[in-house]
Amino acid sequence: MANFKKSEIGKIEEIEKNYENGKVFLHDILNLTSSEISITKMPKGTKLPFNHKHKQNEEIYIFLKGEGIFTIDGEKIEIKEGTLIKVLPEGIRTMEAKDDLEYICIQAKKDSLEQFGLGDGELC
Amino acid sequence: MANFKKSEIGKIEEIEKNYENGKVFLHDILNLTSSEISITKMPKGTKLPFNHKHKQNEEIYIFLKGEGIFTIDGEKIEIKEGTLIKVLPEGIRTMEAKDDLEYICIQAKKDSLEQFGLGDGELC
Repeated sequence: MANFKKSEIGKIEEIEKNYENGKVFLHDILNLTSSEISITKMPKGTKLPFNHKHKQNEEIYIFLKGEGIFTIDGEKIEIKEGTLIKVLPEGIRTMEAKDDLEYICIQAKKDSLEQFGLGDGELC
Repeated sequence: MANFKKSEIGKIEEIEKNYENGKVFLHDILNLTSSEISITKMPKGTKLPFNHKHKQNEEIYIFLKGEGIFTIDGEKIEIKEGTLIKVLPEGIRTMEAKDDLEYICIQAKKDSLEQFGLGDGELC
């Protein structure tokens, strides 16, 4: 069996043409076993209609384009290209887009990482 | 203690202005415990000067811009905006940029994910 799996999702700025609600989850596409990843475009002026938290997964948001407000436990944070936010499972979070907002969200089990970078890699 | 940590890395297309070799690792910036994430811009015409594999971590590459060739176990794969590649730990990988190549790489422990999406999230 090949040691990899590849897919194509097209241009992120046109993601709503291929994926409902402008969001694609990668877990099922790539058969992931270590993390769930979503790639999203939220249109200008939209708000997530709910708050959420997690049971055991840490989330990391990487904002690629646009502007908006991320709210965690009632604290409002301005977001734009290059903003990074890690949220612990118990953080209550929601988001709104002031301009078309493109972002990647990674969720993986808190405290599961044992080694990383040069510690897990091997030259060959 | 706050349930989040935020940082700013600026525009990815200018990442080499702020980070050596056009690469930033997020583990230490965000105190991650679930995954290591890097954001990279590889200049046109460059090749990684080594092959590598991993001990226990699955890697996921998300290509944001540019063109190049990703090689896994000797198999060459064309990469461009919207290409996604998951590599199992034992896959021997390297990469070259045919045009300025921007990508995000996530590594997390293979088989560590227990629940995801609606399974791990809770509305509140």
